[in-house]
Amino acid sequence: MRVELVCIGTELLRGKVNTHGAYISTRLAEIGLVLARETTVSDDPAEMEPAFRAALERSDVVLSTGGLGPTFDDLTREGWSKVLGVPLERHSSLERTIRERFRKRGLRMPPENARQADVLRGARVIPNFVGTAPGQVLERKGKLIVLLPGPASEMVPMVEGTIIPTLRRKFKPVPYASFTLHTFGKPESLIDHKIRPVIRLRMRPRLLSGRESAGMLRRDEWINFCILAHSHRADVKAEARAGSPRRLKMILEGVRRELMGVIGRNVYGRDEETLESVAGGLLARRKLKLALAESCTGGLLAEMITRVPGSSRYFVSGVVAYSNGVKQKLLGVRGETLDRYGAVSAQAAMEMAEGASSAADIGVSITGIAGPSGGSRHKPVGLVFIGFAGIGRRFALRRFFHGTREDIRQNAAMTALDLLRRELQSPLPQ
Amino acid sequence: MRVELVCIGTELLRGKVNTHGAYISTRLAEIGLVLARETTVSDDPAEMEPAFRAALERSDVVLSTGGLGPTFDDLTREGWSKVLGVPLERHSSLERTIRERFRKRGLRMPPENARQADVLRGARVIPNFVGTAPGQVLERKGKLIVLLPGPASEMVPMVEGTIIPTLRRKFKPVPYASFTLHTFGKPESLIDHKIRPVIRLRMRPRLLSGRESAGMLRRDEWINFCILAHSHRADVKAEARAGSPRRLKMILEGVRRELMGVIGRNVYGRDEETLESVAGGLLARRKLKLALAESCTGGLLAEMITRVPGSSRYFVSGVVAYSNGVKQKLLGVRGETLDRYGAVSAQAAMEMAEGASSAADIGVSITGIAGPSGGSRHKPVGLVFIGFAGIGRRFALRRFFHGTREDIRQNAAMTALDLLRRELQSPLPQ
Repeated sequence: MRVELVCIGTELLRGKVNTHGAYISTRLAEIGLVLARETTVSDDPAEMEPAFRAALERSDVVLSTGGLGPTFDDLTREGWSKVLGVPLERHSSLERTIRERFRKRGLRMPPENARQADVLRGARVIPNFVGTAPGQVLERKGKLIVLLPGPASEMVPMVEGTIIPTLRRKFKPVPYASFTLHTFGKPESLIDHKIRPVIRLRMRPRLLSGRESAGMLRRDEWINFCILAHSHRADVKAEARAGSPRRLKMILEGVRRELMGVIGRNVYGRDEETLESVAGGLLARRKLKLALAESCTGGLLAEMITRVPGSSRYFVSGVVAYSNGVKQKLLGVRGETLDRYGAVSAQAAMEMAEGASSAADIGVSITGIAGPSGGSRHKPVGLVFIGFAGIGRRFALRRFFHGTREDIRQNAAMTALDLLRRELQSPLPQ
Repeated sequence: MRVELVCIGTELLRGKVNTHGAYISTRLAEIGLVLARETTVSDDPAEMEPAFRAALERSDVVLSTGGLGPTFDDLTREGWSKVLGVPLERHSSLERTIRERFRKRGLRMPPENARQADVLRGARVIPNFVGTAPGQVLERKGKLIVLLPGPASEMVPMVEGTIIPTLRRKFKPVPYASFTLHTFGKPESLIDHKIRPVIRLRMRPRLLSGRESAGMLRRDEWINFCILAHSHRADVKAEARAGSPRRLKMILEGVRRELMGVIGRNVYGRDEETLESVAGGLLARRKLKLALAESCTGGLLAEMITRVPGSSRYFVSGVVAYSNGVKQKLLGVRGETLDRYGAVSAQAAMEMAEGASSAADIGVSITGIAGPSGGSRHKPVGLVFIGFAGIGRRFALRRFFHGTREDIRQNAAMTALDLLRRELQSPLPQ
């Protein structure tokens, strides 16, 4: 079963990073299909049409992304029509839906948008709940041709809601599952080093002795590991295929236990969990309220905490205090502290956290130098203090982060979230 | 002059994001060359060789990345050797260099690494100062074949130091330049509709009358437009080539003026500019201080403002007020206002902005319902009020945004930034 992806979009050949292949290949792998090739061409029909033709010759399924918009350079519909020899037909109901979307926003549909209602004869329309360009699926001579819009926000719901179920139905893949463990605060190479014994044991089943257990893979079974490194985060992903859902669950559960045995201390969450959702969940469970005081992160910590739906249950307030005056007025930091130790100091972080905690059960603060300027010999760019006050604890940590302004802010906010999570996971003092 | 890129790497078809095309196409564009196609295939010779062959047939320059490592699945050298009919020869001096690299790190070279000294007969070797895999450049029948390693840290120095200079020498590119105009607040299709007359005029020079002006393109000149749509933003990019830098400047300046004539009201910035850098620049120039009060955006607006280095010159403070108590205590919103109109109302937005402005020249506020829950019939998810107080103005806007919690927060914060920019661009009242 051969699947290819053709990405249409001049911008993808002019400096825009294309993440469609990464996303689609991941989703295909999860149903046991492999993406054999990704081709990226511009919106030019002379480039697009030969690419469609060649992909169709080689493959059973051809997915295309992009070129379904209303503008002059959106020519994917026409390209497929020509390559397949299938005419385009304008769907009047689709045209009405598009016109209605504009009307709801108080706009009149520009005449160009009517082209988005052109559908390949015989194709199934995939509705677009986010934008105006519908997707299309056409079966022809045993092959499947899929037209998806370019923006990820429109493409992803179509892949999840229609394409993956369609492929699953059509090709009946071997049961597959995966999980990802998220770690924070340790370099990728250390995580790699720690999980290596588990990987070795699992990937070479034939080296194991004869006794049957979930620890051994059968002939039709398969397991794979990978580490995805981000700046201060490393994700460990394990994926497996097995003859039955029961075996699959048993294998992955065994692997998870073994991995947690070696890296459990660094794991903050699993799959869709984020540092902010885990910390938020702990606050909600313990019925504790949080308030924040930020300087160099400029609101990023509050923004991350409030990304989580329902965060109003535990998040009370955040103060972004860029000037010393505001630190004194809104957070009650003492002028003497600022004069003596400076705004970037453990003492200031401590008083900021205490000031924040006056409105909640826990106050967390961040103060530091995100750069690129503002550093000195004693307080270089990257120096950050994180304060914690509440639930019977009171301390400030000193940290140093490398990288750009953005890296330093990101790492400072994530370190504060990880600190909060660890404090909430340790038992409450009596 | 046609250039193609073939990326080799099974991992690129298993979920890893491929950024090589974005980087290489940007660098090529800067010397006036266009990347015509990017193909990604696995390390399998059966996939790789047909991709090399087809790219070579279509193009003058074929760049390949990846598959130059020492392991069993690094087969790019062998693939090119077969497709070109050119034998591989082991360079003993190269082998020594690789062995030396290992020795310096206190390691012995594994025997597999000797394969990295295999070079296509007649190819020029590009030294690798970061890793062990050298690059190769081969000229054959007027075409250029380039083998680059997969890791960006090894590939980029070779592109910068050898490939770009080689291409520049060989193809003496026509001067090239581009600019991008960023618009906010109008749908892509409307921007497209507005710029269409400019595009039509520019793209069909032969339809123009005979008088020579910058408005007409000569035979060796070329111009291209594209629209890049984001959720509430649309970018218009224009790129051109011309016989001389002077002509190039004249053409692009003319195009920019024409585009600004039709979409100028919606353009907030150009090239590297962002809404936050433009608004920040205006605050700095006018020596005005800004303070923020946020509810549903949870600190996102403050985070965006403080992304800009040097924002401490104009940004004073931000308050994230999730509870009514905090809105009253830190921002001075009246209890009566909250009781009568609710926290999500024009009145509350106004008082929040005024409360913020007490610490600065301008106060901007956002209050709304980001969802997914918390909406009602009269105040649905997506309803947002933005308040503005300062420089002699005082008002609140009502807006409605579609999409996810993240979309609503993003659009609310960007709308507030755009509002701030517009207010700062209009003349100050006397």
